[in-house]
Amino acid sequence: MSPTAALQLLAVPGLPMIEPGDDLAKLIAEGLAHGNLQPRAGDVLAIAQKVVSKAEGRSIDLATVKPSARAVELAKEVQKDPRLVELILSESVRVVRSRPNVLIVEHRLGFVMANAGVDQSNVGPTDGVERALLLPLDPDGTAETLRKSLAAQFGAPLAVIITDSFGRAWRRGTAGVAIGASGLPALLDLRGNPDLFGRTLQVSISGFADEIAAAASLVMGQGDEAQPVVLVRGLTWSAANNPASELVRPAAEDMFR
Amino acid sequence: MSPTAALQLLAVPGLPMIEPGDDLAKLIAEGLAHGNLQPRAGDVLAIAQKVVSKAEGRSIDLATVKPSARAVELAKEVQKDPRLVELILSESVRVVRSRPNVLIVEHRLGFVMANAGVDQSNVGPTDGVERALLLPLDPDGTAETLRKSLAAQFGAPLAVIITDSFGRAWRRGTAGVAIGASGLPALLDLRGNPDLFGRTLQVSISGFADEIAAAASLVMGQGDEAQPVVLVRGLTWSAANNPASELVRPAAEDMFR
Repeated sequence: MSPTAALQLLAVPGLPMIEPGDDLAKLIAEGLAHGNLQPRAGDVLAIAQKVVSKAEGRSIDLATVKPSARAVELAKEVQKDPRLVELILSESVRVVRSRPNVLIVEHRLGFVMANAGVDQSNVGPTDGVERALLLPLDPDGTAETLRKSLAAQFGAPLAVIITDSFGRAWRRGTAGVAIGASGLPALLDLRGNPDLFGRTLQVSISGFADEIAAAASLVMGQGDEAQPVVLVRGLTWSAANNPASELVRPAAEDMFR
Repeated sequence: MSPTAALQLLAVPGLPMIEPGDDLAKLIAEGLAHGNLQPRAGDVLAIAQKVVSKAEGRSIDLATVKPSARAVELAKEVQKDPRLVELILSESVRVVRSRPNVLIVEHRLGFVMANAGVDQSNVGPTDGVERALLLPLDPDGTAETLRKSLAAQFGAPLAVIITDSFGRAWRRGTAGVAIGASGLPALLDLRGNPDLFGRTLQVSISGFADEIAAAASLVMGQGDEAQPVVLVRGLTWSAANNPASELVRPAAEDMFR
């Protein structure tokens, strides 16, 4: 792989508040045009999970949620709204850790994460309705659909990632990760490539799409949807494409679940 | 915090192979001049751990290492060179997980990581001597020393991070992290900032320096020291500075050690 000498990350301007049913590819294309950004071959579009979830109608009115007995009990332990806990459990395959103010689960897509990604912030509008936003149904699939649509519109092979921010087991603060990807190797396996001295690299599997997501997160800003789409320009890679599901460590390999 | 609209990452060219005792600040300044890069206020210089370790003389000739009985025993279990295991143990305060081909420890600086960061790749030159490279003694301290020196040389307030690539508990592939930082908030605590709808953000502590390190890692390239220093331009922040040690989750808060 030839190293990337320079990388540019540009916020795509002019995106409106996203509503259920919105055509995200069309809105992103309009935003790119608005910013005089002409996507080129090899550009990566990083899209925040929240706008994908909103476009997919994954916003839930909490008043419609009836918590199960298990959710009520767990909600007491973790000191959260039982309706929120019900949604979290409905999106999860197992509870990994629970403590007051902490609920770490294995999401149905394999992500070990807080609250199954169910988010109460930035969900509005402030119409008095309490809403929670779930992760997209199939982020790799949505990344592929968006990539195909945008590549066709711009006549250039692009890549798309859908990003979220996850906590880490041993490090404080969240970092951007890719929960969906299409058009690039989300997991970049460089084992076998020689290092500068001809020694075969021992640990050389990189969470490529996660690093792109972390970079994009710096531009998106925390807790602010004003810049949910970021154009990443200048990356090069020569491995085969694979989806973000490749970034999920299988439970059988996991020593910490 | 005003969002960052555009971010640029530029490899600093012209760095020589680093030798013990090298003046890294001087070599980086020369590289910047070589690339016609004039650092500005707010620029962040991301420096790969390996060149810091090399300049500090943290390269060890394996022939000089006498493995303890404990190292010999553990080496059998994890199928590694007993001398390497001795070095790993000498850099660690506890073994977190051990399995064939896996040795995850708590490094003396608190990092939970594979092999205490002791690295056999890219250590050369190929003089027949088998060497291993340890992490810098005090990466936050070194980041501060380098920052002061570079800021004085360029007359501009800069930030410096020292980067490494860590594995993650639940995700495959490594991602860049900051093991040293000076001149920026390594951990960015945005709790209490309102979101777009005035709701107070619930989870809003960002591993800011880790995300910068992940972004820089995309430019440094995997297993290649040709681009060990990256200039990151365009970040804005308004929180107080703190060192990379703030990114380490204290053992008392850790649910997975």
